[in-house]
Amino acid sequence: MQPAKTAAVLIIGNELLSGKVEEANLPFLARTLRELGIQLRRVVMVLDDIETIAREVRELSASHDWLFTSGGVGPTHDDVTVDAVAKAFGVAAVTSPEMRTMLLEHYKERCTEGHLRMALIPEGATLETTEAIRWPTIRFKNTWLMPGVPEVFRMKIPVLVEKLGQEVPYISTAVYTKMEEGDLKPLLDDVVAAFPEVDVGSYPKWLDPSYKTKVTFDGRDRAQVFAARDRFLSTLPESEPQRVD
Amino acid sequence: MQPAKTAAVLIIGNELLSGKVEEANLPFLARTLRELGIQLRRVVMVLDDIETIAREVRELSASHDWLFTSGGVGPTHDDVTVDAVAKAFGVAAVTSPEMRTMLLEHYKERCTEGHLRMALIPEGATLETTEAIRWPTIRFKNTWLMPGVPEVFRMKIPVLVEKLGQEVPYISTAVYTKMEEGDLKPLLDDVVAAFPEVDVGSYPKWLDPSYKTKVTFDGRDRAQVFAARDRFLSTLPESEPQRVD
Repeated sequence: MQPAKTAAVLIIGNELLSGKVEEANLPFLARTLRELGIQLRRVVMVLDDIETIAREVRELSASHDWLFTSGGVGPTHDDVTVDAVAKAFGVAAVTSPEMRTMLLEHYKERCTEGHLRMALIPEGATLETTEAIRWPTIRFKNTWLMPGVPEVFRMKIPVLVEKLGQEVPYISTAVYTKMEEGDLKPLLDDVVAAFPEVDVGSYPKWLDPSYKTKVTFDGRDRAQVFAARDRFLSTLPESEPQRVD
Repeated sequence: MQPAKTAAVLIIGNELLSGKVEEANLPFLARTLRELGIQLRRVVMVLDDIETIAREVRELSASHDWLFTSGGVGPTHDDVTVDAVAKAFGVAAVTSPEMRTMLLEHYKERCTEGHLRMALIPEGATLETTEAIRWPTIRFKNTWLMPGVPEVFRMKIPVLVEKLGQEVPYISTAVYTKMEEGDLKPLLDDVVAAFPEVDVGSYPKWLDPSYKTKVTFDGRDRAQVFAARDRFLSTLPESEPQRVD
């Protein structure tokens, strides 16, 4: 099996680091990438600073198959992502004639210079649209510029699903047990050693009467994932109450 | 005024990057740091990989006043944060006699080697406790090792509040307007230029009838923050409905 394609996410916004706003886009994007069979390997969250963003875009786009930025694409002084991506790739930020026309048609006589800033793109960027979603999503090479506003971010997810294409998807299964992690450790070590290609995770839950530890099995080889889970189940004490998802 | 102390957060966990679990600790930590007057400048989220974590700990601890890690401190194979922090600082991971004693007292005859792994610390680490929270939080120099389980993470917040101390806090105020960002741009550019020490943010809201843009003013100099807000308010059209927080 081909190794999974890799992705990074760069989340931009002073309001997230100050705790004034809770980040809400990453869970949607992470689940989407997972369903597409793409491995999200790294997320970085930075302030609205053009030099910092440009440096991150250079590094993350070079070290991953895909990079997704979230935030900083509006018309105001704190929206610097287009300029930063242009800087990262050594091109100018220019007005897209297509996007300018769409803005003029939408705002008509109310259209200001501020509105027209939303037509800025890194020179040479591709404008990605689908039949249903006509306002373009900007992509420069492997870097997708996603909006920060959660309602708009979610509207764009179908564009990614259509354009990124389906890789071999990840398979997940989980066992809920009433055993503590400390007691499970030898059982986990056994299955981890036997199935090196399966990602085995162990997550304690406090203050929940229904289980103490959730053990997860993940991978892109369905047979291996289920064989690992079944080996783990076969090593659990018979008296152990369990639920399998 | 002294510049604010800076902080970074390193969030560790395959389950977060795969989208299986939503990260829940950052909003609490970000708000706590804000209230303490500490500027959170960077967040990085990585997989459960010891080399990756060690490299991030080295970089983030060297470039910020404080570093907080979240996750990877349990007893199982995917808990590698103590080993990674030890590696980052060039020390061994050793058993803390105090923590070993506490684990033996808690688990008694049920105590396994797995449980005792929770007594591992980077050699030379400080064990931070408060009167109310006796199970230690591990700190190595400027790096705090926080647990990933949200219920436990939140229980540790008072330790940070007590031990980090109060700096000059941040002041925040906000204006909600029915104007669009594109129309607000010249007003925002004016106040940004007049108050370079105030952080002015502009956040559009879609699908909300009560306002279109939230404009925020943040800083540690109360007089400057309110003067910036009042200048912005004085430039809004009189007919513009507005709410001030």
